[in-house]
Amino acid sequence: MLIFCRKDLSGAERKAILEEARRAGFLAQEVGSHRISLFGEGDVSPLLAMPGVERVAPRPEKAGLAEREEGAAPRTSPVTAGGISVGEGFVVIAGPCAVEGRSRLLELAHAVKEAGADLLRGGAYKPRTSPYSFRGLGREGLEMLAQAREETGLPVVTEALETRDVALVAEFTDVLQIGTRNMMSYPLLTEAGRCGKPVLLKRGMCATLTEWLWAAEYLLVEGAPGVILCERGIRTFSSSLRNTLDLSAVPAMQERTDLPVIVDPSHGTGWAPMVPAMARAAAAAGAHGVMLEIHDDPDRALSDGKQAVLPVDLEGLVRTVREIAALVRVADETREA
Amino acid sequence: MLIFCRKDLSGAERKAILEEARRAGFLAQEVGSHRISLFGEGDVSPLLAMPGVERVAPRPEKAGLAEREEGAAPRTSPVTAGGISVGEGFVVIAGPCAVEGRSRLLELAHAVKEAGADLLRGGAYKPRTSPYSFRGLGREGLEMLAQAREETGLPVVTEALETRDVALVAEFTDVLQIGTRNMMSYPLLTEAGRCGKPVLLKRGMCATLTEWLWAAEYLLVEGAPGVILCERGIRTFSSSLRNTLDLSAVPAMQERTDLPVIVDPSHGTGWAPMVPAMARAAAAAGAHGVMLEIHDDPDRALSDGKQAVLPVDLEGLVRTVREIAALVRVADETREA
Amino acid sequence: MLIFCRKDLSGAERKAILEEARRAGFLAQEVGSHRISLFGEGDVSPLLAMPGVERVAPRPEKAGLAEREEGAAPRTSPVTAGGISVGEGFVVIAGPCAVEGRSRLLELAHAVKEAGADLLRGGAYKPRTSPYSFRGLGREGLEMLAQAREETGLPVVTEALETRDVALVAEFTDVLQIGTRNMMSYPLLTEAGRCGKPVLLKRGMCATLTEWLWAAEYLLVEGAPGVILCERGIRTFSSSLRNTLDLSAVPAMQERTDLPVIVDPSHGTGWAPMVPAMARAAAAAGAHGVMLEIHDDPDRALSDGKQAVLPVDLEGLVRTVREIAALVRVADETREA
Amino acid sequence: MLIFCRKDLSGAERKAILEEARRAGFLAQEVGSHRISLFGEGDVSPLLAMPGVERVAPRPEKAGLAEREEGAAPRTSPVTAGGISVGEGFVVIAGPCAVEGRSRLLELAHAVKEAGADLLRGGAYKPRTSPYSFRGLGREGLEMLAQAREETGLPVVTEALETRDVALVAEFTDVLQIGTRNMMSYPLLTEAGRCGKPVLLKRGMCATLTEWLWAAEYLLVEGAPGVILCERGIRTFSSSLRNTLDLSAVPAMQERTDLPVIVDPSHGTGWAPMVPAMARAAAAAGAHGVMLEIHDDPDRALSDGKQAVLPVDLEGLVRTVREIAALVRVADETREA
Repeated sequence: MLIFCRKDLSGAERKAILEEARRAGFLAQEVGSHRISLFGEGDVSPLLAMPGVERVAPRPEKAGLAEREEGAAPRTSPVTAGGISVGEGFVVIAGPCAVEGRSRLLELAHAVKEAGADLLRGGAYKPRTSPYSFRGLGREGLEMLAQAREETGLPVVTEALETRDVALVAEFTDVLQIGTRNMMSYPLLTEAGRCGKPVLLKRGMCATLTEWLWAAEYLLVEGAPGVILCERGIRTFSSSLRNTLDLSAVPAMQERTDLPVIVDPSHGTGWAPMVPAMARAAAAAGAHGVMLEIHDDPDRALSDGKQAVLPVDLEGLVRTVREIAALVRVADETREA
Repeated sequence: MLIFCRKDLSGAERKAILEEARRAGFLAQEVGSHRISLFGEGDVSPLLAMPGVERVAPRPEKAGLAEREEGAAPRTSPVTAGGISVGEGFVVIAGPCAVEGRSRLLELAHAVKEAGADLLRGGAYKPRTSPYSFRGLGREGLEMLAQAREETGLPVVTEALETRDVALVAEFTDVLQIGTRNMMSYPLLTEAGRCGKPVLLKRGMCATLTEWLWAAEYLLVEGAPGVILCERGIRTFSSSLRNTLDLSAVPAMQERTDLPVIVDPSHGTGWAPMVPAMARAAAAAGAHGVMLEIHDDPDRALSDGKQAVLPVDLEGLVRTVREIAALVRVADETREA
Repeated sequence: MLIFCRKDLSGAERKAILEEARRAGFLAQEVGSHRISLFGEGDVSPLLAMPGVERVAPRPEKAGLAEREEGAAPRTSPVTAGGISVGEGFVVIAGPCAVEGRSRLLELAHAVKEAGADLLRGGAYKPRTSPYSFRGLGREGLEMLAQAREETGLPVVTEALETRDVALVAEFTDVLQIGTRNMMSYPLLTEAGRCGKPVLLKRGMCATLTEWLWAAEYLLVEGAPGVILCERGIRTFSSSLRNTLDLSAVPAMQERTDLPVIVDPSHGTGWAPMVPAMARAAAAAGAHGVMLEIHDDPDRALSDGKQAVLPVDLEGLVRTVREIAALVRVADETREA
Repeated sequence: MLIFCRKDLSGAERKAILEEARRAGFLAQEVGSHRISLFGEGDVSPLLAMPGVERVAPRPEKAGLAEREEGAAPRTSPVTAGGISVGEGFVVIAGPCAVEGRSRLLELAHAVKEAGADLLRGGAYKPRTSPYSFRGLGREGLEMLAQAREETGLPVVTEALETRDVALVAEFTDVLQIGTRNMMSYPLLTEAGRCGKPVLLKRGMCATLTEWLWAAEYLLVEGAPGVILCERGIRTFSSSLRNTLDLSAVPAMQERTDLPVIVDPSHGTGWAPMVPAMARAAAAAGAHGVMLEIHDDPDRALSDGKQAVLPVDLEGLVRTVREIAALVRVADETREA
């Protein structure tokens, strides 16, 4: 069973409910700030009468905060970050894979701004297959991102890799990113959901759509002020590219959720010559935006240079994807009218 | 080793070469009309001097007829069928999954024509998971397709399932289709390559890009007058849709081959509400066309009704995908200029 | 609907039923020798009264000939071939991937015999990714296999690739093999099911267990005197070996079918050093047998040399897998007792 | 480049090396206690002369601590935990998926002991797809595990989900488990490698063998006193079972590493009736052990009941897998002799 409490539940009320639940024979587990899961068998009737308790229902079999209610009309829940609204119009997030140093980051940030993109990405904490690879500049990198935001006005998206870093990253970023390798790191999701910033949640590289929605539920049940979903390619038998970008996840998720869905064609393909085609395809598939990696010297990039677009090519790409997005919007409005 | 013979090799010359090859200790195997593979070890020098022999080279490690030569500039090889050129502009192939009867087919064919599509599809021989499912009308279905072509002027694409049917299907169709389940049925490819009609070769549902190119090689080495590649979704862990449409195969193949590449979002998703988004995405990814399934009564369709778009929705969809394709072409030309 | 007719249905009766079905508004399609599928809507009552008709039922949603009936106790249906019963005890099938020549085949066949294996395998028709690769000796290869059987007494398993070859292959072989690339080539299955010989049906490299059972249904509905299922590895993201051998398919299929299930660790791994471990594992998983590729000169094998075990290592391997199979059988009997 | 320092590097020496590296123009990053990765370009010669520096070499392209050296003879590195040596003989780890309460755990622990297993498993921190599911008893669960160890003498294996829990879990457990969802949570690996306890590292559900070895490298470079690898099933298109148990990973990993490799057929299949067959197969494939989930009331288990074997069936299963393991060992010794 799941106890739904009042949002303004006091500490004393919570304690009393937990005690009563245990007395009634349940294992009780807090979920977010005002829900309590019950396991085992017992009598819920005394709980129903307690102050702070709104209702008791079976534990949900679908991710009710993340999934649209059965039969409800689609209505995207926009996510606001630094003045940008993700989910209305078409957003472009761009920047280097990793923050490698101050001057390079600032230059790339200005290129991102000039190309007409909306947000700046860049990793200060990087998950790397080999421990000997560059793992990011950490706090120093976060400070560089803050400076880039100040100079360009672009809100920032950057990743946290573990619970201990969430508060620090949240202090510096506009949107906190959870990467594909951590989509099932549930304590990290819990911490991220509590940090006060919206979260960009990448799909796990072998996660089903349902598991992805449940991961968003972890964030939302903790009170995340917004969740942006990001398809970034899945693992399949097909090894000609780094990943298989599952663009059908865009319309398929939009059938199930109001959370905005964007696409990362850089990781999704792992190879720069593929990025423009797949960025366009993402816009055509109805995505709410794309996230693109750029680098001015891809061969020497400290991470994922193979998939980085040159800054000089960004502007044209941004223009084309926006044109496609606009065309799709008009077509949809015509169809619905 | 591989012996390249003259294209006008006579029967007597071929026989002499084969005999000489065997005398020299090789296992010799004809490949197409004027190539001979040699296995084992022996002396090739006597072969080089024989009439009809052009050269002897190591057996190829890549599909040299299907793949673009290293370093060569991309230049699509258009495939002409019934006056339509696939590979120039953007083609739309549409029609029912299976030919179910004369009047229904004719109605759907007219709807395809009116919606502005270029070719008519429809299966007379259907590969079905269950032997109890509808396997198609066979020759009768082919005759209906021929009538539909006569009435609408639309060239026809239809599938052959086994070597014994190839000649008959080729007699009625403009483009012979090889389905995903048969991409590795090599005797069927050999027969299809010889039938005199261009071939639409669907990607095997678990075929790598390299295997797909080799399958095209089977067709081309037999003299197929044209090959159209068709991405139709692959098998992955992701089971929310029938298949995972691998749109990155479009630009990835275009990096390797000049054969036109089209996309089948109907099988690729298996679910009609997903088809428009993925058809648009295919156009944006740079595909040379799409193949769409339609049905006027999807719930009662004898095959794959779940993925069929209504005829009434086809026109708008065709218009939008063509607009996107045009926009992408302009963007590419601008970039190259 | 599906009409079940009497097994001794006469031609005239069949014709009358088909005509009546069409008159009633159905599309009628023969399935095997005495079943007729009906599509569309109509009145079945006149059909019920016709001579030769036993009953009419909804078209089956599961492969009723291949799958065990709900609730029935497992009881393997042994397949007899050349005096060997597959499904009782543990069988070992061994031999070269391809028949490359007479003397080599005979030597290998004797090695197979001496190692204690039960059946001889060897391909006369080989499906190859590249058209330039060795595709087998065809009829000549079949004759060599027949000689090997005569000399050693070992029954033979060999593959047919297309409908046109089935009769010829069936004439020479004891068990007709359908390979992984053709598991969904339904006309081939239909022909194989009619050829009078038992069929060894390899699992398609991306086939689900349900699709595999339906493929067996195609064989059984045509009257195949026996079907042996053979797991041979599937396509997954994991590319360190040629395939991922899905040994869990053995117990999972045994939960659903009485057909014997064997394992091919040679194709399943594609690498000789892995074969002994996986052959043993197959026996321990409860398989009814294994199929092993051997070659005396793997580096020069015309096909799949990398996965061939040396003849000298075969005997020890056969002994160990039999010991494991025996141990498992005793454990199972103890548990059930 | 990678600087290999002396193992007894002092803090002052480390600081000096890092400063000198930065002065030379490198980005410097500590890896474990006595290695420093350098990024960018610069002159390494001044570094070579510094106290504490042993050598400077290119950053490794393979996981040198986890992988066996090219050409070296296989020699398993046994992992000792609570008196049990994993990697010598065949170990059985068994216990409930989650610790659900004191009395149940103690009962199950005694059953594990009586069945002849070697270690006790049980989760106090559980990663769950839904936030509303039971996530474990936390510290309380760890204390119950400690009591179970005291009563039965069985060493304990239990999982940590995030960096903040590692120290606490390490205090209570004999072997620290990293689960499949966290195999790529690199900060967690780093923390686990430093905790002083051996680590059981499950394969990520979509991790390649190479990525798995790199994850082990993260542990080893931090000084982990031992690493046990555990195959637990991968994600594939095949959905008849929860996962596809990749048993070929056992011999394939043993070709590359001396770390012991065990198998978890409970998660690997997700269904109790499949567990005995796959546990036996794991032993036959040469695994160093198996990890099995048991529960006395699977239908009411708070986690993964579907895959739990009954305690009453454990003893027979343990006996059979040990017999198979012994038989395989004898066969291997015979072959090598």
